[in-house]
Formats: sequence, C-alpha cells, structure tokens
Amino acid sequence: MRVAVIGGSTIDERTEETARRLGRLLGERGHTVVCGGLGGVMRAVCEGATRAGAETVGILPGEDPAAANKWVSTPIATGLGNARNVLVALNGEGVVAVDGATGTLSEIGHALDFGRPVAGLAAHDPGLEGFEATETPTEAIEYVERAASGAA
Amino acid sequence: MRVAVIGGSTIDERTEETARRLGRLLGERGHTVVCGGLGGVMRAVCEGATRAGAETVGILPGEDPAAANKWVSTPIATGLGNARNVLVALNGEGVVAVDGATGTLSEIGHALDFGRPVAGLAAHDPGLEGFEATETPTEAIEYVERAASGAA
Amino acid sequence: MRVAVIGGSTIDERTEETARRLGRLLGERGHTVVCGGLGGVMRAVCEGATRAGAETVGILPGEDPAAANKWVSTPIATGLGNARNVLVALNGEGVVAVDGATGTLSEIGHALDFGRPVAGLAAHDPGLEGFEATETPTEAIEYVERAASGAA
Amino acid sequence: MRVAVIGGSTIDERTEETARRLGRLLGERGHTVVCGGLGGVMRAVCEGATRAGAETVGILPGEDPAAANKWVSTPIATGLGNARNVLVALNGEGVVAVDGATGTLSEIGHALDFGRPVAGLAAHDPGLEGFEATETPTEAIEYVERAASGAA
Repeated sequence: MRVAVIGGSTIDERTEETARRLGRLLGERGHTVVCGGLGGVMRAVCEGATRAGAETVGILPGEDPAAANKWVSTPIATGLGNARNVLVALNGEGVVAVDGATGTLSEIGHALDFGRPVAGLAAHDPGLEGFEATETPTEAIEYVERAASGAA
Repeated sequence: MRVAVIGGSTIDERTEETARRLGRLLGERGHTVVCGGLGGVMRAVCEGATRAGAETVGILPGEDPAAANKWVSTPIATGLGNARNVLVALNGEGVVAVDGATGTLSEIGHALDFGRPVAGLAAHDPGLEGFEATETPTEAIEYVERAASGAA
Repeated sequence: MRVAVIGGSTIDERTEETARRLGRLLGERGHTVVCGGLGGVMRAVCEGATRAGAETVGILPGEDPAAANKWVSTPIATGLGNARNVLVALNGEGVVAVDGATGTLSEIGHALDFGRPVAGLAAHDPGLEGFEATETPTEAIEYVERAASGAA
Repeated sequence: MRVAVIGGSTIDERTEETARRLGRLLGERGHTVVCGGLGGVMRAVCEGATRAGAETVGILPGEDPAAANKWVSTPIATGLGNARNVLVALNGEGVVAVDGATGTLSEIGHALDFGRPVAGLAAHDPGLEGFEATETPTEAIEYVERAASGAA
C-alpha cells in the first residue's frame, strides 16, 4: 500500500535515523512512500525506502520537479505552496508522522479529516480518534497497516 | 483588521452562542470576519458580525458561491475541497479557533505555519508557539489584536 | 451580479483605457468586479469600477493580501500560483476577457469549462460555444448579462 | 523526459487510436507519460505507453486514487477539481494536446504560461508562441523533444 510520511524539514541526527529506518522497513514490507519531497524527515525516509527497493513519491510545494531530494523516484510539482500538504495526506492509505511542527500538524489534521489512520513517532498527539502514538517505526507501520485494512 | 474564525460545522447551542458573540464583538471593534462560509461556527460568527455591521468573507470548498450561509457578504468559491482551509488561514491577520475537530486542527497548523497568531476558545491546544488558549471571546480578540500588531 | 474580468498584466495605453471604461460601466450597472488583483487589465478595471462605486474582489496568486492593486476592496490571498486562475473564472457569473495572452487563455478555458459565458474584447477567440467576440465594453457587458441570466 | 498529454475524456475511435499510438511511441522513446488520469485521451495514451513499458502518472481531480484508469501506474489524487489541470501542465517538460475542448484549452494556456512547448494534434491552435500544430504523433513528439531540450 502507499504510506504517507510527514515530518519536519529541519531535524536532529536521531530523528533522521528514525526516519531512515522507517523508510527501510516500509520498503522491505513492499510499501510505496509518499511525502513532501524536500529535506529532513522527507529525505531520510526516501533514502531508507529507496535502499530497500521501494518507490517514493514526492509532492512538492514549488513549480520545479528538480527541487525534490535525490531519493524521490516520482516528483510531482504543484506550485500550490502549503496547500500541497493536503495532497500528501490524501495519497497515503495510512500516515506516519515523525517529529515535526506546524506543517506536520496541518497534515495530521488533513489526514484525519480524510479518515486516514495516523501513527505518530515523537509527533504531537492531537488526542483525536484515528491517531495512535507509537514508540518505534515497526509499531507505527503495524498500526497503519492494521487500521488501513480495517477501514477498507 | 481581518480575523479568520475557524471551527466545527456541527456544534451545540453553547458553542453557537460563543461564536455569535465572538462575531458581534469582532464587528463592534471594526474587524472583518474571514471563515469557511458554511454552517456551525462559520454561520454563527457571520451572523454576529453582520448584526454588528461588519463584512464577512466565506471561502468555500465547493464550486458554488450560493452554498455560503446567508450571513456571508463576500462568498469565494474555490472548488478545492479541504485545500481551501489553507486560504482561510492565510486571509486572517490573526485567527480564532472555536471548538472544532480535524478540519480545525489542519487550519491551526496552517495558520501557525504562516506565522499568524491563533487564539483558541475550547479548541485543541497544540502546545506550539503562537497559540494561546483563551477563556472568552473578548480575551481571544485581545490576544490576536495584540499579537498581530506586534508582528506588523 | 459578479463579473470576472481577465486580461494581461502588461498592457498598452489603449487597452488600459478600455479596461478602465469596462470597469466604470460594470460599476454603473451595479455589478461587482472579480479579477486576479494585480496590474494591467486587473488594475485598470478595478480603478474604473471603484470610481463608479462598485466593489472589487482580487484573487491573488501569492500569500500576501497587500500585493493587491490599490483599487481592490476585497483582496483574497491564495498562495496557489497560477492555479488561482481557476478561482477567478469560478467567481464570476459571466466573464469578460480583455486582450491578454497565455494566462488569459487558461482562464477562458476554465470559465467555459464551468459553463460561464465569456465575452472577448480584442482577446483570443477559441471558437468554442459560450465565447462571444465583442467590439466595445458595453457590448461585452450586455452579452454576459444576457447569457448569464439565460443560464440561470 | 516526462511528457504531459492532454485531451478530451469523450472521444471517437479515430482519436482514441491516435492517442494510443502516441502513448506507444512515447514509451518506445523512453518517456514517462503524465496526464489527468481519467478516460478518453488520458486512458488511451496510458494504455499505449504501458504496453510499450513506460510509466504513467495520472493527476486526478478527485480525492480517490482508485478513480484512475487501469493503465495509470502512479495515480495522484488531488481533490482540487479543475485546478488539477495546472498540475498536469506543470509536470511535463513538454506537452502534447490531442483533440479536446475547454479543459484542454485551459491546460494549453497553463502549459504555455509555464514556458512548456505544446504540440497540438487536431487540437485548438491558440496562435501563441510555443504552440506547434502537428500532423502525426511522431511529429508531435519530435517537436516537444526538440523544444524542451532547447529550453534546457
């Protein structure tokens, strides 16, 4: 299935390692990663997924597909600015939020609004139905796999 | 100034009263209300503002300007679905969130992302800088007036 | 009714005069002008309409409402770039195209797609149903008034 | 390179054959097809491209990725309605327009606006710089290959 991964573009080393590991596990389980296509969590998760042989879709805020990080296999330019966050949330059957601040918050809101299950890894917990705080990448993936198939 | 008001479309009587009162106070202080143009908090705040002589802008998810509630003086159809939330957040110099669930959460995220101060009235508190939990409509308005002028 | 006016942002003096005159006539007939909010045709039509006492809505490509020309009474920031053209077309019950190049072409396409009548003043004629080449501002307005009321 | 193909969703048999042949030739030359993901020209060009081993991206107006035709390898849901036309134009380095009416006209306008070369196959010719009326799929592809590399 397609899993959207959202998170900050400026991150510390530990968060980067978590995102890379999340990407690798998603790839090993045969999932495609959808993200915002830029740096930080987006880049690390794409790197991990690509190394595990997965495809990665990067939905960009700007008009230039070449702005995507180098681990994105399918860049989609939008020119929509922050409104592209809606498209990221829409194109995952499930969503994993890693760390992140205000942009990530808007994506969590949109994802829940579309009925997508959201797992949080050190992300803000809005306390709303459909959101599950998780401790590890494996736990996060297992939650969205289970919740997305239950919804289908 | 223009104040964006965000909140749920299905609300109880008490929240409706709060939103209407918020609208009236905004109007009395010479502000224009920007909102999503539909029912619930959006309708109540427009009613209050209109009765106080204010203008109200309703930025709609669908393609039909006539879908706006009857207290909207300037309806803007977008056809963008939930991506219109971004435009609501963008068009207030400050934002007041009243109650609300996932859609409101996405708007709080977008507003903070754009650097807009957000006052919450019984709204989810994301614990991020720029968000202030407030107890009354007056307190909410005073916060966004102060924070928006400080930013200018 | 609301009439969307579309056209180039770089124009010669004669086109500017035509757009200003179009705005004045629209205002005198009680219409509201909707446009892209920037310069050229957009600025001239807003000036004419404002001088005749009409309201003017400017739907902007960027994130800053203050980027609107000074004759716009209600600026709407979108941050959507060229996708804001769709919103301009959507918010007129009829459309008048003045001069203009590629951006105007996209707006004519969107307007016809939404079933809006389009009058062209020295604009590209796509030869599609719903588009009427006209010679004067008065003729253009009369066409969209007639066609929009027929559609209603 | 990525080539956006735009055109009507209701087409006759001959246009369908042209679109399928265009897709096959694009695939044989190693290009990726980007389109609106639905029926008519969009479906036929994806079928041809897929049979020639190419990847196909379908940028959809609605919120459901499953609405894409079965020859789309990467569906992108947008929920943006007609504003998704902008994204289709943006994601091709060159554009081929096949037949088509008002929606296609808006996409030609957006593509030229973004500086993309557009080849038309029995499509409306706006008479603007960057648009080339062509007679065959081969001629259309050769034009956009040449013009896009010249622009690079």
